[in-house]
Amino acid sequence: MFDLAPDHPFGITALPYGIFSVGGGPRRVGVRYGGYVLDACAVARRLRWSYADLLAGPVLNPLMAAGPDVWAAVRADLRDWLVADPDPALFTPLRDVDLHLPVEVADYVDFYAAEQHAVNAGRIFRPDGPALPPNWKHLPLGYHGRAGTVVVSGTPVTRPVGQFRDPDPVFGPTRRLDFEAEVGFVVGVPTAPGERVAVADFDAHVFGVVLVNDWSARDIQRWETAPLGPFLGKSFATSISAWVLPLAALDHARVAPPARDMPVLPYLSDDARAGLDIALTVTLAGHVITRPPFGVMYWTPAQQLAHLTVNGASLRTGDLFASGTVSGPDRDQWGSLLELSWNGRDPLTLPGGERRTFLADGDEVVITATAPGPDGGRVGLGEVRGTVAPART
Amino acid sequence: MFDLAPDHPFGITALPYGIFSVGGGPRRVGVRYGGYVLDACAVARRLRWSYADLLAGPVLNPLMAAGPDVWAAVRADLRDWLVADPDPALFTPLRDVDLHLPVEVADYVDFYAAEQHAVNAGRIFRPDGPALPPNWKHLPLGYHGRAGTVVVSGTPVTRPVGQFRDPDPVFGPTRRLDFEAEVGFVVGVPTAPGERVAVADFDAHVFGVVLVNDWSARDIQRWETAPLGPFLGKSFATSISAWVLPLAALDHARVAPPARDMPVLPYLSDDARAGLDIALTVTLAGHVITRPPFGVMYWTPAQQLAHLTVNGASLRTGDLFASGTVSGPDRDQWGSLLELSWNGRDPLTLPGGERRTFLADGDEVVITATAPGPDGGRVGLGEVRGTVAPART
Repeated sequence: MFDLAPDHPFGITALPYGIFSVGGGPRRVGVRYGGYVLDACAVARRLRWSYADLLAGPVLNPLMAAGPDVWAAVRADLRDWLVADPDPALFTPLRDVDLHLPVEVADYVDFYAAEQHAVNAGRIFRPDGPALPPNWKHLPLGYHGRAGTVVVSGTPVTRPVGQFRDPDPVFGPTRRLDFEAEVGFVVGVPTAPGERVAVADFDAHVFGVVLVNDWSARDIQRWETAPLGPFLGKSFATSISAWVLPLAALDHARVAPPARDMPVLPYLSDDARAGLDIALTVTLAGHVITRPPFGVMYWTPAQQLAHLTVNGASLRTGDLFASGTVSGPDRDQWGSLLELSWNGRDPLTLPGGERRTFLADGDEVVITATAPGPDGGRVGLGEVRGTVAPART
Repeated sequence: MFDLAPDHPFGITALPYGIFSVGGGPRRVGVRYGGYVLDACAVARRLRWSYADLLAGPVLNPLMAAGPDVWAAVRADLRDWLVADPDPALFTPLRDVDLHLPVEVADYVDFYAAEQHAVNAGRIFRPDGPALPPNWKHLPLGYHGRAGTVVVSGTPVTRPVGQFRDPDPVFGPTRRLDFEAEVGFVVGVPTAPGERVAVADFDAHVFGVVLVNDWSARDIQRWETAPLGPFLGKSFATSISAWVLPLAALDHARVAPPARDMPVLPYLSDDARAGLDIALTVTLAGHVITRPPFGVMYWTPAQQLAHLTVNGASLRTGDLFASGTVSGPDRDQWGSLLELSWNGRDPLTLPGGERRTFLADGDEVVITATAPGPDGGRVGLGEVRGTVAPART
């Protein structure tokens, strides 16, 4: 049962946390191990670990709020137990559990941190101007999204309706439904109003990492977006993975961020290994269509958090901030259909011969990812999966 | 003690709800009556009203979630009791209570619904272009703000620091701290994902009204805002009144919205009395500086809620949406210093001779409002008050 290959992506290094239930029972904290879910609270209670109540569910927030010392203790205790003497009765096959939204999301912020994505968007929408807005290399641009419509992987996404131009304003189902492949960070330790989180204090506040699909209706977004930014083009649904990978599982994935060609103000100076070498893969209707590399993001997650709090805005346990679309320099590394189809001009042809500019009803989008682990292995991040349901009439 | 004049703004018609405590005791639901706070839960428990537990605190959300029939029953029972036989032991003078954030805020959305405000902003920031963006008369523009930094009236507001241009990007305390006088609406009854709230169903979901000061750092906002909208220029603090006025208290304030000079799509058609004739007053350092009229707002709150949900975005109990700055056609009706000082060009002179372009440390901003009540009286809305504290160094 636990004969995992040493390089299994959900082996002893990953140990992501999620919220699971069996047969409609209560929601509890689980840890993914291979193809199984370990009932973490049951282990902790049996062994009388002092923090067992933090694992009782129905969300990860109590564990997240407990801080880095507790996070390290839980992880160490679980690893020791898994290596020594795991009781099979405390594991349930993944296929037999229901996975739920792991985090009660407080505020949700979405950044715009990949240079290639910003350049692509600029070239598409402002072909006669500079590709990047003048502020882009001075600060990590971001905006608040809708926390109440963050849903767990597997939740169907209903095609939104709304207002867009054709060429006059019309009302109807979006004709340009898109995905955005992103990486999200979940805040555990809150701050007081007025407190700032320095770049160096990232690990003291961030609990873990999720994959994010920031579904976008490009026609609705395009019409509404100036001057206040994205709103209904995004707020209908944002999917996150059911598994939250602890930051500690990414110790071997820390890399240097790309060279910055513009000096940043001191509060945004990051250290030499502030990047995370996470390799994403996106499949559409079962076919791999792009492989966005997170390691090349211009703005690192630590810079994003420092910027988010520099004005004294407080953090709450459960705050979620996402990177924005991850797009690498090459065409097969772009993280949205907006870019891959160049706003509909160049349709993608799937292996079966079907063509796509934007998403069709019934399309399933799956984002998966791995990162370097110890001994040349890979650490897995939980997938984020969603199928497009037809618009409600 | 209860010898209120028939036209007292906090008499038998208003009956706003808040959360109070006395001497560090528990937070309970209170109702403002004249200069007193009535312990609503104590009344309800003594008289064994069936909904008494909804009034136990520490926030209004359980009462808000209960829906219009319960809201009407509580209000009717309280009025009958207040008219018949109020027990003085259940009232505490306002000066002896602490008032707390009345609502656990879920998502916070800010609109941009006053035509004069949008025109002023356009003329200031885009003097060579059209004053209004092309989408402005087709849909109520809005964006998500930071729910976690919504604070109750009386909370000091620390001057935020951040990045802005002078002319190169610099870092420091904002030099252009502003207020925005707004009216906010609190959602009680949630919706399921995919559900839309028609304009006509506004009263079935909205529990009540608060006054809002959407503090803004204009220099930070200006530099960050394109293309994703306001972020750190707003996210440091948003103040709301401690009192939530039930929608039913505004029955006599319903008025026709202004004539629209552009046809709207059917989902935004509102009825003949969708406006609310709320008269705001803003004082700065004790002097009245403007009197913004909410009744002339181009987009009504019912249109705002219909737009917010038209894409299927679900509502949660505690969602807060604000109108955006309320500015009437005349200069002494503009709802921000940005407008009143024309972005710093025309300083205001206060009666004592002091001049202001934007807010100085120590300045107190107070927004109050009343609306027409029965028999020619006025109904009061709770004030929203805040004093500027110096930036943290």
